[in-house]
Amino acid sequence: MQTVDTIIHAGFIIPVQPLNQVLAKHSLVINQGKILDILPTQSCNNRYQSKNTQERLNHAIIPGLINAHTHSPMSLFRGLADDLSLDDWLNSHIWPAEKQWSNPEFIAAGTELAIAEMLRSGTTCFNEHYPFAKTIAETTDKLGMRACIGGFLIDFPTNDASDAKTYINKAEQLIQQFQSHPLITTAIAPHAPYSVSDDNFKACFKLADQYQLPLHIHIHETEFEVNNSLKEHGVRPLQRLNQLGLINQRFISVHSVCFDDSDIQLLAEHHAHIVHCPKSNLKLASGFAPIQKSINAGVNVALGTDSAASNNSLDLFSEMQTAAILAKAVSQNPTALPAAKALEMATLNGAKALGIDNITGSLEINKAADLAIVHLNDIESLPLYDPISQLVYATTKNQVTDTWVAGKQLLNNRKLLLINEERLRISAVAWQEKISKGL
Amino acid sequence: MQTVDTIIHAGFIIPVQPLNQVLAKHSLVINQGKILDILPTQSCNNRYQSKNTQERLNHAIIPGLINAHTHSPMSLFRGLADDLSLDDWLNSHIWPAEKQWSNPEFIAAGTELAIAEMLRSGTTCFNEHYPFAKTIAETTDKLGMRACIGGFLIDFPTNDASDAKTYINKAEQLIQQFQSHPLITTAIAPHAPYSVSDDNFKACFKLADQYQLPLHIHIHETEFEVNNSLKEHGVRPLQRLNQLGLINQRFISVHSVCFDDSDIQLLAEHHAHIVHCPKSNLKLASGFAPIQKSINAGVNVALGTDSAASNNSLDLFSEMQTAAILAKAVSQNPTALPAAKALEMATLNGAKALGIDNITGSLEINKAADLAIVHLNDIESLPLYDPISQLVYATTKNQVTDTWVAGKQLLNNRKLLLINEERLRISAVAWQEKISKGL
Repeated sequence: MQTVDTIIHAGFIIPVQPLNQVLAKHSLVINQGKILDILPTQSCNNRYQSKNTQERLNHAIIPGLINAHTHSPMSLFRGLADDLSLDDWLNSHIWPAEKQWSNPEFIAAGTELAIAEMLRSGTTCFNEHYPFAKTIAETTDKLGMRACIGGFLIDFPTNDASDAKTYINKAEQLIQQFQSHPLITTAIAPHAPYSVSDDNFKACFKLADQYQLPLHIHIHETEFEVNNSLKEHGVRPLQRLNQLGLINQRFISVHSVCFDDSDIQLLAEHHAHIVHCPKSNLKLASGFAPIQKSINAGVNVALGTDSAASNNSLDLFSEMQTAAILAKAVSQNPTALPAAKALEMATLNGAKALGIDNITGSLEINKAADLAIVHLNDIESLPLYDPISQLVYATTKNQVTDTWVAGKQLLNNRKLLLINEERLRISAVAWQEKISKGL
Repeated sequence: MQTVDTIIHAGFIIPVQPLNQVLAKHSLVINQGKILDILPTQSCNNRYQSKNTQERLNHAIIPGLINAHTHSPMSLFRGLADDLSLDDWLNSHIWPAEKQWSNPEFIAAGTELAIAEMLRSGTTCFNEHYPFAKTIAETTDKLGMRACIGGFLIDFPTNDASDAKTYINKAEQLIQQFQSHPLITTAIAPHAPYSVSDDNFKACFKLADQYQLPLHIHIHETEFEVNNSLKEHGVRPLQRLNQLGLINQRFISVHSVCFDDSDIQLLAEHHAHIVHCPKSNLKLASGFAPIQKSINAGVNVALGTDSAASNNSLDLFSEMQTAAILAKAVSQNPTALPAAKALEMATLNGAKALGIDNITGSLEINKAADLAIVHLNDIESLPLYDPISQLVYATTKNQVTDTWVAGKQLLNNRKLLLINEERLRISAVAWQEKISKGL
């Protein structure tokens, strides 16, 4: 008998790699933060023992979900301004609110609220894109979550930095501060082609190249963006970035809504990644990303929530479901984006986009024990012919009972272990009152 | 002090009529099944007393949701067959399963499962379209839910009836059996234009006209259906039904996906109703219904889940959210279908479609006390700038704590009061095992 840190006996284990596999009555064995074994519960009882043995017999263990694009601090703007034109939303609401409120205190509070929401919905890792990256990273570190934090850059001043040089310096400091962190990696996060000059893109690329980091950027979110680039630069935004040499296997193209075949081809050729944010794209009326086409062309497609200001939740279960059913209608093919592929998008493909698929994204021996455990025995989950179908088409985030990051339990039977929910609730309401008054 | 049956003190009351109204710190007073008063909690305490006083101070009371199109018994086929072409789905899975299993015992079990799911997600009324209507209606009666049960007809035999005459007879018996029922109304439910002959439509119309009942039918779900009708009948399906005299203010056009301006105009002119089923339409790759256009033309649009076999849940919160964000992308306008309108679709507009808006669909004095109470103080609902936005864009069905039908509480703090959940779970699993073996 080998003594290990943790054993979880589960109704089902769904490792994602291989695709479509469902292991009934299996156990997951964790030691030193990593998955040591996955085996039938009967064999497990003969081979391993642990003081921390948990029974989740009416549940499925899946890899922790990866939110491959979000702006965490904006959770404090959830529902602040909906049902508005993009111009009105940005110019009259979001930007003024950011200008007024965005400071380290706000950023830390918003990040904690976002992390609590993500952990409560089975998300173990997020890819962050916002100013004040250092504060976001430090808050994430404190709360034990995995993340890729982008060093932000835009051609305009924000409360975080006044010019490109400062953004770049801050990004490099961030990279160095977290270079050997066990859970936090970094990326370069220029805002978008329409808000970053060629020179600033070159500076971003230099940094990304030097440290071999992902370049995380909003691409072709709207038709307006594409048309503007054609007018100003004579080429589509993605072509412009390609001419600048930015597109490679570490390029993360968020949204990718207004994509034609040449755009998809370009990303496929360079082994770049798409992050699909279906609910944000619908809510902001950006359009319908050609996701099945992109998958068919061989592009790795991950899933993101975007911010709680344009979604309005950080809920990858809802995002998986929307992605899976939307892809069918968009491609006029009910066999498009089947459940197992949607789950892969929300897990392993996210890890690939962030360049951490050697560490996480699937339940495999020696990978980190990043887990979401989902209750599948409420009447809304019955009958249960196919657990993967149920997870994608009939599960809500509230069915997540447990979340583990690198072998450490952060949610236990829906209770957050490192975050005081009552204090967080009080903080969110206090911010709400301040922000409402400022409107 | 007046003594009344029930008083509920709420954080918010959202009556839906008038649109966009949010009453903070109000109380809802129920007597003899009806709403007696809605007033500030402070005044309520001076005016009314009740042995049954409930505090829901972190919650919103909204009208009970109305699922304006579903096939309840199919909940037992939830997740049985997903990600398939429509042909494969129907011919190789759903129809054989129905042929094998559809009998009164299956129907009653499936209906109970569906009703439990609907009550747990704030739905107080549903519009049913399936064979064995008598069994569905009797099960619904037993469980205390409100419903409009359609007398089903199709040109083909089912386990319920072998020919049109039998379907029509059964429909008339159903109508008469429930003619003075306090909660159950009836409708005529011919399947679809492609599966019902002109003669049988005339028989349906005769019955609907005689009893002044709604005609509840699938319309223009797919392009294939429209093209086929053009080939066979020389006109679009809706035009054919119009020529047969079927379209009037009691006509309920479900799906209405492949609608051109003439289709919308036809329904608008006749004050007919659309039931939008966005998730089913996406999942089956049927297409994108022009909902904002239909609303703009003055058509009353309600919301339905379709069956759990094509959705895969009976969750109007998810449906409201999908409808609201999808309409924005389809109409390329982020101001389309704002939150308050989506909530109206899921409540008052459903009641209008069923012809029961004098009884239910909004929280107004003298209407039935059909209520859903939603917890809005979890961190996923904070900050709470706008409760209506939160309900539509950031609420899951699991936040529903209480459901009341006609002044009777059927769900209390997430516990079903008339349904034994454990027994229901055992029944669903037993059906799953039987049906799986039969595959």
